[in-house]
Amino acid sequence: MSDFVMDWEREGRTGVPEAVLCASKSVAQVEAILKEAAMAGRRLLFTRLEPAAFEALAPECRAMLDYDSLSRTAWCGSLPPAGAARDGIGIVAAGTSDLPVAREAARTLEFLGFSAPVVADVGVAGLWRLMRRLEEIRAWRVVIATAGMEGALFSVLAGLVDAPVIAVPTSVGYGVAAGGTAALHTALASCAPGVLAVNIDNGFGAAAAAAKILNKM
Amino acid sequence: MSDFVMDWEREGRTGVPEAVLCASKSVAQVEAILKEAAMAGRRLLFTRLEPAAFEALAPECRAMLDYDSLSRTAWCGSLPPAGAARDGIGIVAAGTSDLPVAREAARTLEFLGFSAPVVADVGVAGLWRLMRRLEEIRAWRVVIATAGMEGALFSVLAGLVDAPVIAVPTSVGYGVAAGGTAALHTALASCAPGVLAVNIDNGFGAAAAAAKILNKM
Amino acid sequence: MSDFVMDWEREGRTGVPEAVLCASKSVAQVEAILKEAAMAGRRLLFTRLEPAAFEALAPECRAMLDYDSLSRTAWCGSLPPAGAARDGIGIVAAGTSDLPVAREAARTLEFLGFSAPVVADVGVAGLWRLMRRLEEIRAWRVVIATAGMEGALFSVLAGLVDAPVIAVPTSVGYGVAAGGTAALHTALASCAPGVLAVNIDNGFGAAAAAAKILNKM
Amino acid sequence: MSDFVMDWEREGRTGVPEAVLCASKSVAQVEAILKEAAMAGRRLLFTRLEPAAFEALAPECRAMLDYDSLSRTAWCGSLPPAGAARDGIGIVAAGTSDLPVAREAARTLEFLGFSAPVVADVGVAGLWRLMRRLEEIRAWRVVIATAGMEGALFSVLAGLVDAPVIAVPTSVGYGVAAGGTAALHTALASCAPGVLAVNIDNGFGAAAAAAKILNKM
Amino acid sequence: MSDFVMDWEREGRTGVPEAVLCASKSVAQVEAILKEAAMAGRRLLFTRLEPAAFEALAPECRAMLDYDSLSRTAWCGSLPPAGAARDGIGIVAAGTSDLPVAREAARTLEFLGFSAPVVADVGVAGLWRLMRRLEEIRAWRVVIATAGMEGALFSVLAGLVDAPVIAVPTSVGYGVAAGGTAALHTALASCAPGVLAVNIDNGFGAAAAAAKILNKM
Amino acid sequence: MSDFVMDWEREGRTGVPEAVLCASKSVAQVEAILKEAAMAGRRLLFTRLEPAAFEALAPECRAMLDYDSLSRTAWCGSLPPAGAARDGIGIVAAGTSDLPVAREAARTLEFLGFSAPVVADVGVAGLWRLMRRLEEIRAWRVVIATAGMEGALFSVLAGLVDAPVIAVPTSVGYGVAAGGTAALHTALASCAPGVLAVNIDNGFGAAAAAAKILNKM
Amino acid sequence: MSDFVMDWEREGRTGVPEAVLCASKSVAQVEAILKEAAMAGRRLLFTRLEPAAFEALAPECRAMLDYDSLSRTAWCGSLPPAGAARDGIGIVAAGTSDLPVAREAARTLEFLGFSAPVVADVGVAGLWRLMRRLEEIRAWRVVIATAGMEGALFSVLAGLVDAPVIAVPTSVGYGVAAGGTAALHTALASCAPGVLAVNIDNGFGAAAAAAKILNKM
Amino acid sequence: MSDFVMDWEREGRTGVPEAVLCASKSVAQVEAILKEAAMAGRRLLFTRLEPAAFEALAPECRAMLDYDSLSRTAWCGSLPPAGAARDGIGIVAAGTSDLPVAREAARTLEFLGFSAPVVADVGVAGLWRLMRRLEEIRAWRVVIATAGMEGALFSVLAGLVDAPVIAVPTSVGYGVAAGGTAALHTALASCAPGVLAVNIDNGFGAAAAAAKILNKM
Repeated sequence: MSDFVMDWEREGRTGVPEAVLCASKSVAQVEAILKEAAMAGRRLLFTRLEPAAFEALAPECRAMLDYDSLSRTAWCGSLPPAGAARDGIGIVAAGTSDLPVAREAARTLEFLGFSAPVVADVGVAGLWRLMRRLEEIRAWRVVIATAGMEGALFSVLAGLVDAPVIAVPTSVGYGVAAGGTAALHTALASCAPGVLAVNIDNGFGAAAAAAKILNKM
Repeated sequence: MSDFVMDWEREGRTGVPEAVLCASKSVAQVEAILKEAAMAGRRLLFTRLEPAAFEALAPECRAMLDYDSLSRTAWCGSLPPAGAARDGIGIVAAGTSDLPVAREAARTLEFLGFSAPVVADVGVAGLWRLMRRLEEIRAWRVVIATAGMEGALFSVLAGLVDAPVIAVPTSVGYGVAAGGTAALHTALASCAPGVLAVNIDNGFGAAAAAAKILNKM
Repeated sequence: MSDFVMDWEREGRTGVPEAVLCASKSVAQVEAILKEAAMAGRRLLFTRLEPAAFEALAPECRAMLDYDSLSRTAWCGSLPPAGAARDGIGIVAAGTSDLPVAREAARTLEFLGFSAPVVADVGVAGLWRLMRRLEEIRAWRVVIATAGMEGALFSVLAGLVDAPVIAVPTSVGYGVAAGGTAALHTALASCAPGVLAVNIDNGFGAAAAAAKILNKM
Repeated sequence: MSDFVMDWEREGRTGVPEAVLCASKSVAQVEAILKEAAMAGRRLLFTRLEPAAFEALAPECRAMLDYDSLSRTAWCGSLPPAGAARDGIGIVAAGTSDLPVAREAARTLEFLGFSAPVVADVGVAGLWRLMRRLEEIRAWRVVIATAGMEGALFSVLAGLVDAPVIAVPTSVGYGVAAGGTAALHTALASCAPGVLAVNIDNGFGAAAAAAKILNKM
Repeated sequence: MSDFVMDWEREGRTGVPEAVLCASKSVAQVEAILKEAAMAGRRLLFTRLEPAAFEALAPECRAMLDYDSLSRTAWCGSLPPAGAARDGIGIVAAGTSDLPVAREAARTLEFLGFSAPVVADVGVAGLWRLMRRLEEIRAWRVVIATAGMEGALFSVLAGLVDAPVIAVPTSVGYGVAAGGTAALHTALASCAPGVLAVNIDNGFGAAAAAAKILNKM
Repeated sequence: MSDFVMDWEREGRTGVPEAVLCASKSVAQVEAILKEAAMAGRRLLFTRLEPAAFEALAPECRAMLDYDSLSRTAWCGSLPPAGAARDGIGIVAAGTSDLPVAREAARTLEFLGFSAPVVADVGVAGLWRLMRRLEEIRAWRVVIATAGMEGALFSVLAGLVDAPVIAVPTSVGYGVAAGGTAALHTALASCAPGVLAVNIDNGFGAAAAAAKILNKM
Repeated sequence: MSDFVMDWEREGRTGVPEAVLCASKSVAQVEAILKEAAMAGRRLLFTRLEPAAFEALAPECRAMLDYDSLSRTAWCGSLPPAGAARDGIGIVAAGTSDLPVAREAARTLEFLGFSAPVVADVGVAGLWRLMRRLEEIRAWRVVIATAGMEGALFSVLAGLVDAPVIAVPTSVGYGVAAGGTAALHTALASCAPGVLAVNIDNGFGAAAAAAKILNKM
Repeated sequence: MSDFVMDWEREGRTGVPEAVLCASKSVAQVEAILKEAAMAGRRLLFTRLEPAAFEALAPECRAMLDYDSLSRTAWCGSLPPAGAARDGIGIVAAGTSDLPVAREAARTLEFLGFSAPVVADVGVAGLWRLMRRLEEIRAWRVVIATAGMEGALFSVLAGLVDAPVIAVPTSVGYGVAAGGTAALHTALASCAPGVLAVNIDNGFGAAAAAAKILNKM
C-alpha cells in the first residue's frame, strides 16, 4: 500500500483537494486508494473512471461511490449540503458531443461546493442560439466553455461577456480536429482577450481553477 | 531561356491564366519571364514580388509593370476596361494585418476581370462590426474571407451567409498561431458547413477559385 | 431534451440545413434528435453513423431512416422528387478505397436536391483512366474530388478543367500518408490554381459547399 | 482610414479595452490608429511595438506615447491616478530572460488600473529562491507566472498557492524548447490543478484575464 | 531459426547483455529465441511481454520464465545471488500510474545484479512528499526518475540532488501529454543541469545506462 | 588540423567519393579541407557553399575552385575528360524555382563522370509540357525529378516511365508547403510505385545514388 | 463492377504491374477485383491483406490465391518458372521484428520474377553480425534494407557497400520511434550518400523500385 | 539589480555550479550578472555568448572573461590548477560541423575541473575512422558524443563501448534533419542500450551530467 501517498493537505494549501485520475490506474490501485480514503474518513473525487472500470470494482467499493457514467466521475464521502452550494460559475457547451466534458466540470464543481448551470448546444454556426442565452451567461462571474472541432465559440463568447472565459477544448472532431488540438489552438490564439485554456477534455481542471478564483474573492 | 515554358493555353483550358510566383525566383528569372510575355504580347500576373525585388528589376522591366507594394503583386499588359469588370465576389478581412492578403485577392480579381469590394476589420472580438456590414456581404455570390490568429471569423461568417466562403488563413499571429496553421485548421474544421480553404496567405488562389466559380455560372 | 437546440432556420439563412455528426454522440442522443425532428415534421441528415450504431438504434428509429452503410449516412423525411434533382455537380474518386467518402458527398447532394454522378478509379498512376473520362468531367460546373495517399489527382485535375475543384483528402494510406495529412497538404499546396480544400474525409462539407455554389448561381 | 474600425465599446462590454498588436502592422497603420485614438480622445494600448518600429514613427506620434522598450509596449492617453491602482495581482518570472514578457503583463495591468509587483528569478532549479518569496506570493488573489524552457515553475507554484495561476509560457529556450511549446505543454498538462494557460509570450492576454477576474469580484 | 542472431558477446563488449523487445514479435519468435537461449545455457531478459502474449506461450516456455505482469518483464536463467546485488541506484516514480515503468527499471536492474529501491508517489503538486524522502534519495549515486504528464519532477529533483538524474518520461497523460512527449521535452529542456533522458516508457534503457555507469566506477 | 579526417577511401569502397557539406562549416574549416585535398592531390566536391562564403575564401583557395553560384557547388581538381562522360541519367525540374537543386544534381553528376540533361518547367498544372518531352525522358535509365509545393510531378512521372524515379523534394513553397515536407510526403506516399526519395533539397544525394545505380550495371 | 478500373497496361508502360492495396478495401471489393483478374486471365499481387480479411474471402477466392500471412501478401496466377528468376537484389533486415516488411519485399520480387535472399538480424548494436555477412551483401547490385527504431543500419550499410541502398523504415518501435518516423528521418538524413527511401513499411514499393532498376540495366 | 538571484549554493547542493545562458539576455543583464559575480568573488560560466554580444560588453567586463568564440563560452574567475584536472571523460564529434558543441562540452568540463580529450570526424559513413580510435575511447568512463544529421554514431558507439554514452544531438543538417530533431530521435530510439540524451546542441548539459557521474564515484 506504500505505493501511493495521498496529499490530504492539498485542500488547505491550494483550496482544491487532490483528485484521482483513474485512466492509467489498475482496478486494484483504484480500490486501494478508495479504501485508504474511507479509512481516513476523507471524501475524494475520481475522474476518468470508465464504466467498464467502475463495473470491475468490488461491490463494496462501488457502493461507496456516487458514479456518473456520462462524465465518468465518481466520489466517495458526503457533499456540502445542497443549499450551501455557492454560485457564480456557469458552463457552456458548444454541442451535445461536448456534454461529457461539460458534465465533468459540473460534477467537479458540485464536489467542491459550487452549483453551476450548463447551457448546451450554442455553437456559433447558429449564433442566435448563443444570443438568446447571453443575458443569463453575462450574469456569471466565471464562464467555463467547452467546444471541439474549431472551437470558435471561445472567441465569440469572450468578445461578448466581461467575465473570464476558461476554455476547455474537447477532442470532438476528425481530420485536422482529431484529438482536440485545433480547438486548443483557437483558445490560445483567440483574438478576444480574456480566454484562459486548460488541457484538452480537462473539465476537472477548468472547474478546479474556477473554484480557486471564487475562493479568493 | 529554355528553362521556363509558359503555359499560355492555361486560361483557355482552365479559365485562369498562369501566374508567376516570384518568391523563389531570381531577379534574372523574373526579368526573362517578363520579357517573354512582352514579346508574346501576353499579359501576365506576378505574385509575391517583394518591394526589394521589384526595385532590383531593370528600369525597362519596372516600367512594364503595374506594381502594388502592399499586396506585392504586379502585372504587365492591359486590364479589361474598368466598366466591364464583373461583380458578385467580395472580400472580408478580419483585421488590418490581414489586408496584404486581402489585397492580393482583390488585385488578382481585378486582373481576371472582376471587381471585388473589401470589407475590413470585422473580427469577431467585436461582432457588431461584422453585423453592421452583413447585408452588404449577403449580397455577394462568393465570399473570400481572410483571417489570422485563430480564424474564428470563418465559422461565424459561414453561419450567417448563404454564399460559399473561401477561407484564406493568414500567417498573422504568434505562438501557436505563428505561420497560420491555427487559422487554417479552423477553416478546415469549421462547425459551419460551406467553408472552403486555400493555403495560408494564398490570396491569389482564393481569387482564382472564385473566378472559376463565377465563370461557370 | 434541453441539451440540444436544432438550428432549423439554418437552411433559410445559409442554404444548407443542419446535419447531425453522429461520431461522438451516444445512441440515446441520436434517438432523441431523430424524434425531435419527427415531431417537428423536419427532414434531417445524419453523418458518420457507423453500422453498429445504426443497429443499436431502437427499431422505430431505424424504420424512420434511409441508411447507407458504405457512406455511413442516413436521413429521415422525404427527398425532393427524383425528377426535380438539379445537376451540375460531379464527383471523382481516385481509388476504390475513396468510395465511402465519395458516397457521403453523393448522398448529401441527393438529400440537398442534387444529382451527382461518381467517376471512380481514375488515379494518376494510370493517367489514361482520367483522360478517357475527361470530356464528361469537363461538363460539370463544380468538381468534387476525393483522394488519399499523396492526392496528386487534385493538381492534375485542376490543370485540366475550368470548373472549381473541391478537394476532399481521405485518410486512405499509411506511413506518412496515415490520417490524410499528406493528401490535404497536396490539395492546399497545389501548383494548379482553383483547388479548394475541406477537412479530411469530409464528403459532407464538400457537398454542402458545392450546393451553396449552385444555389447562388 | 476606412480599413480599421476601433471597437471602442469593448471595455464596456468585456471589461478590457481593445489593444493594438503592432507586430504585423506597418508604420503607417500604427500612426493612423494612433491619430484616430487621439481625435476620439481615447486612450489606447499598443503591444509588440519593436524599438525600431517605435523609432520609425513620426515625431508627433512618438510624443503621444509612453513607450517601454523592454516590454515593447506603449500607450497614449492618461493612466488612472497612481494612488487609485488596485492590487491583488502579482507576477512571477522564472528567469531574467522571461522579464520582457513579465513586464508586458505588468505594463498592461498598469494601463488597466492595477498595480502588480514582479518577483523575478525564482526558477525551480534552486527552489529556495521561490520558497523565500512564498509568503508574499500567497497573499495575491491571482498569480501570473512566466517561464520558458520546460516551465516546471507552473506546477510547483500551483501546488503551493491557493490562488489561480495564469501561466504564460515564454519562447525562451532552444532545441525542443525553441518557440515555447515545451513550456506551454507543461502549463496545460500540469499535475497540479488550477493552472490556466495563455498563448506563448502573451503577457498582455494574461493581464487582461487577470483584470477580468478582479473586475468581477 | 536463422532469422535471429543473438549477440551473446554484448555483455562482454558493452557491460549489458542483449535483451528481447517482445512488442512486435510473434509468439513463435519469442518461443524460438527462448529455446535458443536455453540450449545455449544463457540467461536472457524479455521486455514488453504483454500478459496475453505470455499466456499464449507454450507451457514449457512459460515454465522457464520468471514473469512480472505489472512491468511486463520476464527472464530465463538464474539471477546473481540476492546477497550479491550491488546498490547505489534508486528509482523515483511521480505517481502510481508510473509504477509499471519504474518496475521495468527495477526488474532490469535486478537481472543485471543491482538492488534498487523504488520511492513512489512524490509528484511535485505536493512537494512535501518528495522532501520527506530527500535524504534517502540523496544517498543514491544514480537516480532514475519516472514521470508522465508534464514531468516537472525531473527539474525539481535535479535541483536538489548531486547525483545524475536519468529521466524516463512515461506515456501517462492525455491531451497535449498523450504519448509522453510533453514529459520528454521537460526532461530535455530542464532548467536544472544534469538531467539525462531516455525514450518514453523506456525503463529498461534507463536501468541499462545506470548499470553501465556503476560498472565503470 | 587534426579536427577532420578525410575518408579518401570512400570512392573505392562505395563508388562515390566523400563531399564536403559547407553549410555549417566556417571559412577557415573549408580552407583547411581544400588545402588538405590539394596537398593530397585529390579532387573534391563542395556543396552548399553560399556565394558569400565563396567570396570570403582566400584568393588562392578561390582560384583552386570551379564554382557555380546557382547550385552553390564547387570542386577542386580535374574532371574526367568531357568525351568520357557516361550518360543514362536525366534530370527533370518541375519549375524554374527548382533549378538550383536540379543543377546541384547535374554538377555532382558531372563531377562523378556522368553527363545529365535537365528538362525544366514541366509541372503538372500544364501536363502538355511534360508530355511533349516524354519520349526524351523515357530514354533515360534513371530519372531524377525535382519539385516543390505539392510535388505531384513525382507520381505522374512514375506512372509514365519505366525507369526508377529519384524524387528530390525542394523547399519551394509557402504555408503548408514551406520547408518542403509536403513535397517529400508526396514522394513517399506516391500512388505510382517506383518512386525513391532523398532528403529535401538534396540534389547531391540524388546524383550520388543515381551514379551508384549506373556504376553497378 | 464499374467502381474500379484495372490499369492492365501498367507493366508495359512502367515495368511493374498494378498491385492491390487491400488495407482500406472491403472484402467485397477485394473479391470483385480478384474475379475481374481471373476473367481477364491476369495475374495480380495483393498487399496488406490481413489474415482475418483473407479468411473472410469466399472459399473460391481463397483457392485462387497464394497467401503468406507473415508478409500479408497474396497473388493469383502463375509465377515465372523458378529457374528463370533473376538475381542481383538482396534484402537486409535489422531485426526479427522487421521480417514482415522484408518478406513483403521478397514476395513482391518473387512475383516480379526476381530471386532475393534475406539477411536478417544484423542490427548495428552488434556490428559483427553485419560484418560477417558483408561479403555476401557486397555482391548484390541493389540492397533493400529494412529497419525500425532509429534505423542506424541504413547509414552504416551505405558506408560499406557500393550498391544503392533502398531503405524501408519500419514502424517497429515505441515512444519517439512509434510509427516509424524516426527511422524514416535517418534514411533521409543519412551521412552516407546513396540511401534512397520509400514510405514506412513499404516493402512492396522498395521491391518495385529495385525491379525497375534491374529492368533498365 | 534585484531582477536576478544567483543560486550560489547550487554547487554544494548538486555538484555543478549555476551557469548563465546568455542567448536571451541583454548585454546589460550579462554585465550586471558578471559584476555581481566579481563582487561576490565567485567564478561563473557563461554559455551561448555570441561573438557579437561579447564584443558589445564593456571593456572592463571583457577583460574579466576567458572567452572562446568557437564554443561561444566564457568564464570569469580562476580555474582549478591544470595539473589537478581529473580525467575519465572523453568527447567524440561525428563531423567538423559538430565541433562547436563538442567544444562547449570540453570547456564546461575544464571549468568544472576535468580534462576531456576530443576525438573528431569519426562519422559512421567511414567506419574505419571510428575503429582506429576505439581503443582510446574504450578507456573512458563516460563518453560524450556529438552528432547531427541522422546521428547514427550514437548507436554504433553504444554497441562498441561499455561506458555510458551521453548523446548530444546537434542542429547540423537540413530538410528533415534541420533543427536536430532527427538526431535527437536516433539518440532516444537507439537499438543499443545505454544511450542517454540531452537537448539539441546542449554541450553544457552533457558536461554537467558527466561531471555529476564522476563526482559520485
